[in-house]
Amino acid sequence: MRTPVTPFPLSRRLSEVRGSAIRDLLTLTARADVLSLAGGLPAADQLPRERIAEAAARALTDSASVQYSETAGVAGLRAVIADHETGRIGRPVAPTDVVVTSGSQQALDLVARAVLDPGDPVAVEDPVYVGALQVFQASGAQVHALPLDDDGLRVDVLAERLAQGFRPRLVHTVASFHNPRGVTMAPGRRRALAELADRYGFLVVEDDPYGLLAFDGVPPQPIAAHGERIVRLGSASKVIAPALRVGWLVGPPELTAAVERLKQCTDLCSSSLTQAITAELLSDTAWFDGHVGGVRAENRRRAHALTTAVDTRFGDAVVRSTPTGGMFVWLEFADGTDTTALLPKALGQGVGFVPGSAFEAGDTARTSAARLCFATYPGDLLEIAVDRLATAWRA
Amino acid sequence: MRTPVTPFPLSRRLSEVRGSAIRDLLTLTARADVLSLAGGLPAADQLPRERIAEAAARALTDSASVQYSETAGVAGLRAVIADHETGRIGRPVAPTDVVVTSGSQQALDLVARAVLDPGDPVAVEDPVYVGALQVFQASGAQVHALPLDDDGLRVDVLAERLAQGFRPRLVHTVASFHNPRGVTMAPGRRRALAELADRYGFLVVEDDPYGLLAFDGVPPQPIAAHGERIVRLGSASKVIAPALRVGWLVGPPELTAAVERLKQCTDLCSSSLTQAITAELLSDTAWFDGHVGGVRAENRRRAHALTTAVDTRFGDAVVRSTPTGGMFVWLEFADGTDTTALLPKALGQGVGFVPGSAFEAGDTARTSAARLCFATYPGDLLEIAVDRLATAWRA
Repeated sequence: MRTPVTPFPLSRRLSEVRGSAIRDLLTLTARADVLSLAGGLPAADQLPRERIAEAAARALTDSASVQYSETAGVAGLRAVIADHETGRIGRPVAPTDVVVTSGSQQALDLVARAVLDPGDPVAVEDPVYVGALQVFQASGAQVHALPLDDDGLRVDVLAERLAQGFRPRLVHTVASFHNPRGVTMAPGRRRALAELADRYGFLVVEDDPYGLLAFDGVPPQPIAAHGERIVRLGSASKVIAPALRVGWLVGPPELTAAVERLKQCTDLCSSSLTQAITAELLSDTAWFDGHVGGVRAENRRRAHALTTAVDTRFGDAVVRSTPTGGMFVWLEFADGTDTTALLPKALGQGVGFVPGSAFEAGDTARTSAARLCFATYPGDLLEIAVDRLATAWRA
Repeated sequence: MRTPVTPFPLSRRLSEVRGSAIRDLLTLTARADVLSLAGGLPAADQLPRERIAEAAARALTDSASVQYSETAGVAGLRAVIADHETGRIGRPVAPTDVVVTSGSQQALDLVARAVLDPGDPVAVEDPVYVGALQVFQASGAQVHALPLDDDGLRVDVLAERLAQGFRPRLVHTVASFHNPRGVTMAPGRRRALAELADRYGFLVVEDDPYGLLAFDGVPPQPIAAHGERIVRLGSASKVIAPALRVGWLVGPPELTAAVERLKQCTDLCSSSLTQAITAELLSDTAWFDGHVGGVRAENRRRAHALTTAVDTRFGDAVVRSTPTGGMFVWLEFADGTDTTALLPKALGQGVGFVPGSAFEAGDTARTSAARLCFATYPGDLLEIAVDRLATAWRA
C-alpha cells in the first residue's frame, strides 16, 4: 500500500502573492456568450497576423531562428529597440543598454529580483497595476501605496514622505495611460520624480507598454528623459501582438547586467523566432508607423463609443476617466454600488469587467470602482456590453 | 550640472548567483573560426525548420495564436503533453496536471520559487547542472552536493545523510543522460529515491530534457513512475527546437497551482504561437517519432565519432564517459591538466569546451575535467575539433 502523501510544503512567501483577479477572470469571461471588458486584450482584428506570418516565414529560412540565442537578446532586435528608445528618450541608447525579455512583465520581475531583498520598501501607485503588486509581493518587499490624481502620481505626496524619512528602493509607475486609472503623469511631475530619484537614490521603474498608443499620436515624453536612475520597460504586446512575448528594458548598466545574469537562470533566453519576427516588424518603419497609427485611431473610436455609451446609460450615477490613449476607462459608481457584488450579475447578463477592489494597493477602498477595457471590441459590441452592464446594475 | 549617479544598490542575494560559464562562453565561442563543443546546442541541421514553418503558417490562420493565452498553457498543448507523460510515467496524467513554461529552465525556476524560502536546504548532484545551481542560489537556498557514479546519483549516500538528520526541501536530479556527467540513474536507485521522498517528505525534481534521446530508443523509466512526490520537468528544446521556448512540468496539484500563480507575475503566459507550433508537432505522432528517431541515430553516430577521436588522440591520458543518450561526454585528464588554463589555448586553436570547474557544486575539485557536447557538429568536424584540442593540450 502506498504511503499517503502528506500536504505539500510551499514557500512561506507564496502566501503573500495575491492571485490576479484579472487572469482568473479570463477563464470566466472566455465563455462565448460573454463580452469581456475585463482583460487588457488588444483587438483580435487589429493584430497583424498576416504580417507576422510573412516575417515568420522569412525568419525560418535562417537556422538561427530555431536555435538558442544570447540571454540579453538577439542583436538585430536590441539594435532596433535602441533606435526606438533613443528617439523616445532623446539621448543615445546603445544596443548593449537593452535587455530583451519575455514580455515587459518579465522585465518587471527581473528588475524586482535584481534590486530587492525581502523587507525592502517599494512604492506603487494606488490603484495599482496588479502585475506589479504581485511581483513586489513575490519579492517579499514592503509595499507602500501612493495616490494618483488626474495628473498621475502625486509626486508631491512622495516628496513629503521622502522628506519624512521614507526610503524606497524603487518607485513603480505606469506614467502614461495608467492601468487601471487611465490618467497620464504631467510633464512637471515627471521631471520632479527623476530629480527625487537622484536626490534620494531610488530607482524609478517606468513601466510603459501604452506610450505609443497616445490618441493624438504624440507619446508623452518619458521620465527617463529627465534622469538616469530610471529603468524603462517596453513591450511589443500592445503595438504588435501579445503572443510574441517580446518586451524589453533599458536602464543603468549595473542593473541591465544584473538582469541579464538573472535571466540566465530564469529561462536562458527568449525565443529567437519571435525576436526575429519583432525585429523585422519594428524596423519596417513605414509598416510599423502605419500599423500603430491604425491601432491608435481605432482605439480612439472605441474609447469614444464606450464612454458615450457609459454616459448615456449611467448619466450622473457614474464618474469616469476620459481616455487619451492606452486601453482602459475607470468608472466610479456615485451611488456606492459594490462592483464585486455586481460582477456575477453582470456575467449573468453577458458582460465582464474588473472590480476596483482588484487594484487596491493601500487602505483606500475601491469597492465602487470598475475597470473597463475599450480596445477589445468594436463600438457596436461595446454599446451592447454597456447595455448589459446597465441592466445588471439596475437589477 | 547633473548630480553624479551613485553606485546602484542591488539585491544582496544576487551576489550568491554564479554567472553561467557556459552562457558566457557562448559569446567567446560564437567566433566563426571556433568549433564550440561548449554549448548544449542541438545540431542546426537537425532542427526541423521547415516543419516548424508549416506549423507556424497554419497556427497563424487563427487569431488565438497572436493573443494572450491562459497562464498554465494552451489547452491543446497541455492535452498532448499529458498524453506523452501518461505514456512515460505509466499512470494517467490529466491536462490540468501540466503547466507549460518558457523552456524547462523556467519550470525549474518557478518550482524553486514556489517551494523554497531563503536558507532552506536543497540537494543537487555534483558535478551539477549549472542552471539548477543558479536557480537555487537565486532562491537563497543552502545547497548540498551529492556524489554521482556510473549509475547516477548515489542514493545510498543521500539515505545515509537523511538518516543522520539532513532534511532537504527538494532533491534535484538529471537522472537520464546527466548534464554534464553523461551517466544515467539505475532503475533500483530511482525506486529508492522515490521512497525516500515519501518517507522524509521532500520533493524530487526530475529534470528530464534528454530522456527521449536514448540511443537505444528506450527512454529510461521516470522516477515519477515510483511515487507522487516528484515533479517532472520536460522540454521541446532538445526534441524539436530551443527557440520555441516550450517546456513543462507535471507534478503534485498543490505545486502546479503554486507555479501557475507565480507564472502570472513572472511573464503572464508563454507564447501562444510557439505553443500552437509545439502542439501540432508533438501530436503529429508519425512525424515526431520519425524525427526523434533521426536525431537519436545521428547523435549516436556523433557520440561515436567524438569518443573514438578522443581515444585516438588522448589514449590513456583521458578517462571519459561512454554516452548512451543525451548530448555530452565528460573527460577527466589523468595527467592533472588544468582545464581552465587549457581553455584559452584551446580557443587559440579554434575549439571550445566547458572546464569542469564550472560544474562544481561542493568541495570536490573538477579542475582536470571537461564537458564536450557531441550533438552540435557532424563527425568530421568533431574529429577536427578533437585534433585541435589535442594540439592545445600538447603545447
